[in-house]
Amino acid sequence: MSVTSQPGAVIANLPWQDRPAGCNNPLWRYSDNPIIRRDQIACANSIFNSAVVPFGGGFAGVFRVDNKARLMRLHAGFSDDAINWKINEEPIVFDTQGKNLPRFEFGYDPRVCWIEDRYWVTWCNGLSGEPTIGVAWTRDFKTFHQEENAFLPHNRNGVMFPRKIGGNFVMLSRPSDNGHTPFGDIYLSQSPDMTFWGMHRCVMKAGASPWQGLKIGAGPIPIETDKGWLLIYHGVLRSCNGYVYSFGAALLDLERPWKVIAANKNYLLSPQTPYECIGDVPNVAFPCAALHDEATGRLAIYYGAADTVVCMAFSTVQMLLDFVTHPDQQV
Amino acid sequence: MSVTSQPGAVIANLPWQDRPAGCNNPLWRYSDNPIIRRDQIACANSIFNSAVVPFGGGFAGVFRVDNKARLMRLHAGFSDDAINWKINEEPIVFDTQGKNLPRFEFGYDPRVCWIEDRYWVTWCNGLSGEPTIGVAWTRDFKTFHQEENAFLPHNRNGVMFPRKIGGNFVMLSRPSDNGHTPFGDIYLSQSPDMTFWGMHRCVMKAGASPWQGLKIGAGPIPIETDKGWLLIYHGVLRSCNGYVYSFGAALLDLERPWKVIAANKNYLLSPQTPYECIGDVPNVAFPCAALHDEATGRLAIYYGAADTVVCMAFSTVQMLLDFVTHPDQQV
Amino acid sequence: MSVTSQPGAVIANLPWQDRPAGCNNPLWRYSDNPIIRRDQIACANSIFNSAVVPFGGGFAGVFRVDNKARLMRLHAGFSDDAINWKINEEPIVFDTQGKNLPRFEFGYDPRVCWIEDRYWVTWCNGLSGEPTIGVAWTRDFKTFHQEENAFLPHNRNGVMFPRKIGGNFVMLSRPSDNGHTPFGDIYLSQSPDMTFWGMHRCVMKAGASPWQGLKIGAGPIPIETDKGWLLIYHGVLRSCNGYVYSFGAALLDLERPWKVIAANKNYLLSPQTPYECIGDVPNVAFPCAALHDEATGRLAIYYGAADTVVCMAFSTVQMLLDFVTHPDQQV
Amino acid sequence: MSVTSQPGAVIANLPWQDRPAGCNNPLWRYSDNPIIRRDQIACANSIFNSAVVPFGGGFAGVFRVDNKARLMRLHAGFSDDAINWKINEEPIVFDTQGKNLPRFEFGYDPRVCWIEDRYWVTWCNGLSGEPTIGVAWTRDFKTFHQEENAFLPHNRNGVMFPRKIGGNFVMLSRPSDNGHTPFGDIYLSQSPDMTFWGMHRCVMKAGASPWQGLKIGAGPIPIETDKGWLLIYHGVLRSCNGYVYSFGAALLDLERPWKVIAANKNYLLSPQTPYECIGDVPNVAFPCAALHDEATGRLAIYYGAADTVVCMAFSTVQMLLDFVTHPDQQV
Amino acid sequence: MSVTSQPGAVIANLPWQDRPAGCNNPLWRYSDNPIIRRDQIACANSIFNSAVVPFGGGFAGVFRVDNKARLMRLHAGFSDDAINWKINEEPIVFDTQGKNLPRFEFGYDPRVCWIEDRYWVTWCNGLSGEPTIGVAWTRDFKTFHQEENAFLPHNRNGVMFPRKIGGNFVMLSRPSDNGHTPFGDIYLSQSPDMTFWGMHRCVMKAGASPWQGLKIGAGPIPIETDKGWLLIYHGVLRSCNGYVYSFGAALLDLERPWKVIAANKNYLLSPQTPYECIGDVPNVAFPCAALHDEATGRLAIYYGAADTVVCMAFSTVQMLLDFVTHPDQQV
Amino acid sequence: MSVTSQPGAVIANLPWQDRPAGCNNPLWRYSDNPIIRRDQIACANSIFNSAVVPFGGGFAGVFRVDNKARLMRLHAGFSDDAINWKINEEPIVFDTQGKNLPRFEFGYDPRVCWIEDRYWVTWCNGLSGEPTIGVAWTRDFKTFHQEENAFLPHNRNGVMFPRKIGGNFVMLSRPSDNGHTPFGDIYLSQSPDMTFWGMHRCVMKAGASPWQGLKIGAGPIPIETDKGWLLIYHGVLRSCNGYVYSFGAALLDLERPWKVIAANKNYLLSPQTPYECIGDVPNVAFPCAALHDEATGRLAIYYGAADTVVCMAFSTVQMLLDFVTHPDQQV
Repeated sequence: MSVTSQPGAVIANLPWQDRPAGCNNPLWRYSDNPIIRRDQIACANSIFNSAVVPFGGGFAGVFRVDNKARLMRLHAGFSDDAINWKINEEPIVFDTQGKNLPRFEFGYDPRVCWIEDRYWVTWCNGLSGEPTIGVAWTRDFKTFHQEENAFLPHNRNGVMFPRKIGGNFVMLSRPSDNGHTPFGDIYLSQSPDMTFWGMHRCVMKAGASPWQGLKIGAGPIPIETDKGWLLIYHGVLRSCNGYVYSFGAALLDLERPWKVIAANKNYLLSPQTPYECIGDVPNVAFPCAALHDEATGRLAIYYGAADTVVCMAFSTVQMLLDFVTHPDQQV
Repeated sequence: MSVTSQPGAVIANLPWQDRPAGCNNPLWRYSDNPIIRRDQIACANSIFNSAVVPFGGGFAGVFRVDNKARLMRLHAGFSDDAINWKINEEPIVFDTQGKNLPRFEFGYDPRVCWIEDRYWVTWCNGLSGEPTIGVAWTRDFKTFHQEENAFLPHNRNGVMFPRKIGGNFVMLSRPSDNGHTPFGDIYLSQSPDMTFWGMHRCVMKAGASPWQGLKIGAGPIPIETDKGWLLIYHGVLRSCNGYVYSFGAALLDLERPWKVIAANKNYLLSPQTPYECIGDVPNVAFPCAALHDEATGRLAIYYGAADTVVCMAFSTVQMLLDFVTHPDQQV
Repeated sequence: MSVTSQPGAVIANLPWQDRPAGCNNPLWRYSDNPIIRRDQIACANSIFNSAVVPFGGGFAGVFRVDNKARLMRLHAGFSDDAINWKINEEPIVFDTQGKNLPRFEFGYDPRVCWIEDRYWVTWCNGLSGEPTIGVAWTRDFKTFHQEENAFLPHNRNGVMFPRKIGGNFVMLSRPSDNGHTPFGDIYLSQSPDMTFWGMHRCVMKAGASPWQGLKIGAGPIPIETDKGWLLIYHGVLRSCNGYVYSFGAALLDLERPWKVIAANKNYLLSPQTPYECIGDVPNVAFPCAALHDEATGRLAIYYGAADTVVCMAFSTVQMLLDFVTHPDQQV
Repeated sequence: MSVTSQPGAVIANLPWQDRPAGCNNPLWRYSDNPIIRRDQIACANSIFNSAVVPFGGGFAGVFRVDNKARLMRLHAGFSDDAINWKINEEPIVFDTQGKNLPRFEFGYDPRVCWIEDRYWVTWCNGLSGEPTIGVAWTRDFKTFHQEENAFLPHNRNGVMFPRKIGGNFVMLSRPSDNGHTPFGDIYLSQSPDMTFWGMHRCVMKAGASPWQGLKIGAGPIPIETDKGWLLIYHGVLRSCNGYVYSFGAALLDLERPWKVIAANKNYLLSPQTPYECIGDVPNVAFPCAALHDEATGRLAIYYGAADTVVCMAFSTVQMLLDFVTHPDQQV
Repeated sequence: MSVTSQPGAVIANLPWQDRPAGCNNPLWRYSDNPIIRRDQIACANSIFNSAVVPFGGGFAGVFRVDNKARLMRLHAGFSDDAINWKINEEPIVFDTQGKNLPRFEFGYDPRVCWIEDRYWVTWCNGLSGEPTIGVAWTRDFKTFHQEENAFLPHNRNGVMFPRKIGGNFVMLSRPSDNGHTPFGDIYLSQSPDMTFWGMHRCVMKAGASPWQGLKIGAGPIPIETDKGWLLIYHGVLRSCNGYVYSFGAALLDLERPWKVIAANKNYLLSPQTPYECIGDVPNVAFPCAALHDEATGRLAIYYGAADTVVCMAFSTVQMLLDFVTHPDQQV
Repeated sequence: MSVTSQPGAVIANLPWQDRPAGCNNPLWRYSDNPIIRRDQIACANSIFNSAVVPFGGGFAGVFRVDNKARLMRLHAGFSDDAINWKINEEPIVFDTQGKNLPRFEFGYDPRVCWIEDRYWVTWCNGLSGEPTIGVAWTRDFKTFHQEENAFLPHNRNGVMFPRKIGGNFVMLSRPSDNGHTPFGDIYLSQSPDMTFWGMHRCVMKAGASPWQGLKIGAGPIPIETDKGWLLIYHGVLRSCNGYVYSFGAALLDLERPWKVIAANKNYLLSPQTPYECIGDVPNVAFPCAALHDEATGRLAIYYGAADTVVCMAFSTVQMLLDFVTHPDQQV
């Protein structure tokens, strides 16, 4: 593969299952979830909230692995079929390229995005102990070149758009606080160079419907369609006895992506299976990546379940567009 | 059926299973719980905390259905055997009868009570966004006539007595706050006309034993016995990692129902099965209705499990009276 | 005085000071505040948040007196000039008239309102330890006849309208929680008989401007004008280091008093003097009564300062109407 | 058995299963967990967090039984094989020996320790309603002689060392607050006589790694080795949606046991099985006892799961020493 | 003065002012409060909550001095008249006598008590950063011999009785948490040797009346009278906007001092003056010492005001006994 | 004045008072504080936390004015002597220059900094309701040109360095949360163009001593000295009854200003006067500006008191350098 060509526009080997008979939902789970067990590598307490992309003729990914000290680390992994993954036993050691950068402190909830000539990895990184958005890039998933953190703390869920818009790199993120933040909206920031960021805008606020009443955050890399950017995002409901993490979708303006064109008030998927309801954090479905085959419009969405394992669900771009723009279900 | 005759005094088709061999508990679960799945109708995220009554030769009910936006709605439903239910796909639209009433904002945890000539429905209704007790009546479970909300916010768990007492309608309720209230006692109020309410009294306070240490609230319509009103109610324990919703029983004075005659310090049922422990809200057993066959004294108690599904448990009036008045177990 | 004639329509001996030269505010403080010291009677820790009315040829009042155990009690008091007050050493003992009423548990923040043929006293009363609105009436400020509490807990700041509207008694109140409530909106309820209450409506919500950002509650008895009911109310701002209680004004529809016609976004008075800033609760100005001379339109407003003493401020109905309806300052 | 000889130094009938093939962990679960069901005796809501010791030729224990009122009680129990237990239906009634002691109020999380000539039982006892460390002793598990509580409230997890050190009895404990304490470190105290305690030292603080980030507390009686005292302790992680109770190990200096010689940053066991993840308190693994056969070095560790049942895991002293002193994994 | 004779039984030079004319309170403030300014020594941010005793022919004391880093230190001071104090510029450096004690970490709210042959100083000391009761003794207020901390964290307000009772040293204290504790009751502990402590009892709980509703803690060394131990203690009320620290009194049984014989429901003094209401912590009156002249029964009580300065108030033993035992004012 | 020359290097008319006799502190208050009253302009509730600079031959400033709705606004003001100020009655209307910027939502705690050719104003601005750092510039204090907000929410206390360092603009700020943040450290960010920001570093964390235990934030524009950047900053202590805002100083490396060279553990000034202790927010001293006369080294520091008024204190650069580098007082 030439690393400067756009990878993944057509993904002939996209993992796929047809929608089950009788199912009318625009999204359906893979029948053999979870695809990655919590103890798939020796050091792991859990593997979840991870990002995968087409790479070479197969697939690569950056995986959140919480080890048995419960330290949060990122590991690279590879797969031929995007279902069976070989995850490196050793965590990624980011190369700071001789720059005087703040060191990697911890890493969780990574996203990976091909832009122009390389894969950009963004994740929740520690800066003097506080969460913010770490930035690195790779071309081979072996060497990861760390760059400056994008923002001041406290931030999480930094998600790149897959191309420059208006001449700038564009990132979604969710400003947070220094704990398990009880609020969270999706903002957008721009950068000419992936180092300095500005022109911040609020894109969506939590509360549009109860499943996303407490906080929301961007999920996979937005998918470009002729209708707009298709954004899959998670939302959190605070019940009388804990949180529930579901995910839904919205459509953003192509050239002014801080403008929401449409959003369905319903969730796409909420935690209902044992592997979503039971684990280190019960009742979590948290999407971090989507594979999109432009030839068929098929989507394979990767999500962490119960902060413990990695799962997969399927849909198509058209089904999600229909869902997002459904006139009776707008928020 | 003549709607002005007392329905359900004798329920020949009451659902029933005998107490399992070896079981000494005064209450036992239906062997095929849950009886209503979370996705029994298309729009539903979950169906739970619902009320059923004898209706015609069969049964009708008002069901809490949280949809996939997680909006809380009420749906009517019908059954021949009180086990297999047909729930309307569309939520109840309350008829305000041309009165200038505050609109229905949301609806949860309904109860249904036949008094004199109609079925009264009470539920947690929103008034300018805050929870209080909504009131409506129906004779056919098709048209529901909304009346004024009974109380100022914040209130939940409004439960009618099945006849006037001392010339007034009587309702139990649980004053609350504007969130997931960390307190809650059972109060009683009276009304000459179902519109204006007063003569408020405290009936029971939380804390009589640890399973009901944090808050309590009335469950099904109280059952009249010659010993007093048999009240089944839920209680909440705050553990070191969340809440546990169980239910127990007490006996109230027939003519001064704010007087507690007896109460067992133990719960009747606590969440122990997978369908009670796993779901949108783990560890919840929340009773909202009971069918009582006066001919046999048999009881079928309907309770929401894990804020996700509807379940059933069985007992008899005599067993519950023995439980409630057990001399060694008084609170 | 005939107790059945409307007292106080003309108050020739209304206390008064002209607006100071150079002052452009619609409200100005009495120059010799506070008018009632914290230790004016022997048992008192503090005297504040109290209600005064014309009575006989002079004035009477119901005073909040927190004693040295910090128990909250109500005391009657009398004055010839509405400035120099003689407060009874002994608290009011409410006469339950042989009715089986919940006992008086504590009393704070009283209001007094002449309606038709008697003075109605409303206050924050305890019901099984929880705050709600107590109701009593008197004709002589010696015997106070207690009636049923108006509402279920938790409620505070019950304020009567001075006449029936649409055939019903009408009360404003502020539903609360069981502590130092971090929220609070003004609601309205109606009653045919001062015993049973219903037809609840939300009148105003906190948050219209920052000085009233956290919670609001009605103050003195609303003043009837040809433009509407003039409502003076307190609002609370949560600063980075505590609360600030100020007060402002709004105008309610005469016949549908749950409709707000106008409201100024500014406060009328905020705690700025030493007696408002220093005391048992710093930074509190809390109005509970207003004397209105219909002949001149003059107003003497009584407010508690720092939850410690009673103060007075002056205005006129016209100035407050101009303030409330100022087109550039609407919320 | 002579009660004055050291019991349990060699435990020929120690329950045991070999490490499963392919398992590299230093600890492995019993294949038939849980060994004690939640409803093993009639009054029980749950049985967990319990202590067992060699006794006679078999085993005895003190069991935490929460009854159906959710009152926390201690029951004695006996076993031939340390797997199948006969637990007394009636709770232990502590004999205060005619001393004017504060009464037993509640009992949870017991530990049992043979020292010199008797079994000492320590547990979380109520003193005027607040948790502290109760102390009693027995020689026959029939009569339990209560002594003075060791400490002022608020305290939990009092764990004795199995011999005097420096002439004093020595106890670990975890000072707490009056609720579900959000902090907790392990302290050590000394006593010449088991009545008066002093010379308090801090041993370990929470936070050495994320699994033990919120609070920690000693587990089984420390095991004496020639390398030091082997301490198994629980730690709590606060996730974005609740707590996770895992356990790990450390090594303390033999003669100055407040000195930590080594501690592995990883946990030994975290809640991952259904019986650890589902129950009254999800995600809890809480060790309270260990049987140690000096002849083989084998360990059977007893831990409560989900605050609902009793489970068992196996290891050897050597494996744990290797784990604790692993040079690459020190905290 | 011979340091082994009982100091202070007769204090001819006790500071004194007669009760002001017209004052009926059992306690009255010194007219020239505060007696110690916040900046009386160069390093001081504030000087308050301090303990004084007769010493030689004059007086000595241990003073809480918060320096300009706001570190809490203890300083010795001396006075001829107990009003004008010379406080050492340098903080006390405690002599650990070669013992391997936890070091002094911080010191606040000291008390000083002569028992048998020396002055014992108790204060809130840090143990691994957490508050507990430090213990030291002196005979000359120059050398202070530190001993073991009395208790495990978290504790404050350790107050000795001035003689052994039943053969043991006796201390009151207030178990706390690791922050600004929202609860607090008075407990009693005993020790044969001032090193090991046990036989803990609850003496008084917060909540007997509202001024002491949140927490209470012992103040000066209890004063022995033939009626019992006269205990002056502080209590805290949580208002809607902060705390108020007042103080009152109770009478404890002479030989079983954990038994309360009498207690007045009213406070003796609440913060009402500018120096009590304004300062680093508004609305605090916090007594730590009392001088008692047995010849006259006069008392000079020393209390910190607003956590900023030291003040004095006067009473007599007889007045306080009358107050405490007043039959109409018992809690 | 030429607006492109460096203003204020020499300020012949700097306001000044000599250090009072007997005062050894490195900072002393102006004898006639406050210099700006809370009601100096008609719309004002309070004027505080404001920034002043040399301008023309006199002085100009940007003032925080909270109006009587308690909305937070910025007003320009002018003075000949930097003591007597004329503040514009109308708030600043920021000119967005035709750019599509987020609108000004509110403004508080401004700083003003001359860099190269213009005055940059930074303040706490609202972005979709959340606090972040607004940026604008002016040359005449009449027209203020708004630019993009520097950061994502939530941020406060954005303070520019007065020259580029290493080719970039440099700003200090304090990441916050969406409320009255209970944490806060000082970070540094860089920008090539005042629009895009990056290269974030942590400079100082709260907690170096108790007066700055909870949170810290930069105050006036750092003052360049040959020893380093002299930074005056505020710190907050959480007492048992509220917060105390004091200020101190540190010295930062000239070319790597995220490196702290020295910092005194003591505060320079804490709230002790009535105007600092009483007001809308008691116990606040909050510096936002300093005038520095390079000829004499004199400093006039402007600080808000009690979030109500503007005050002034004096020092010299040398005194502050001595203070900051005092070898016995380093944190």
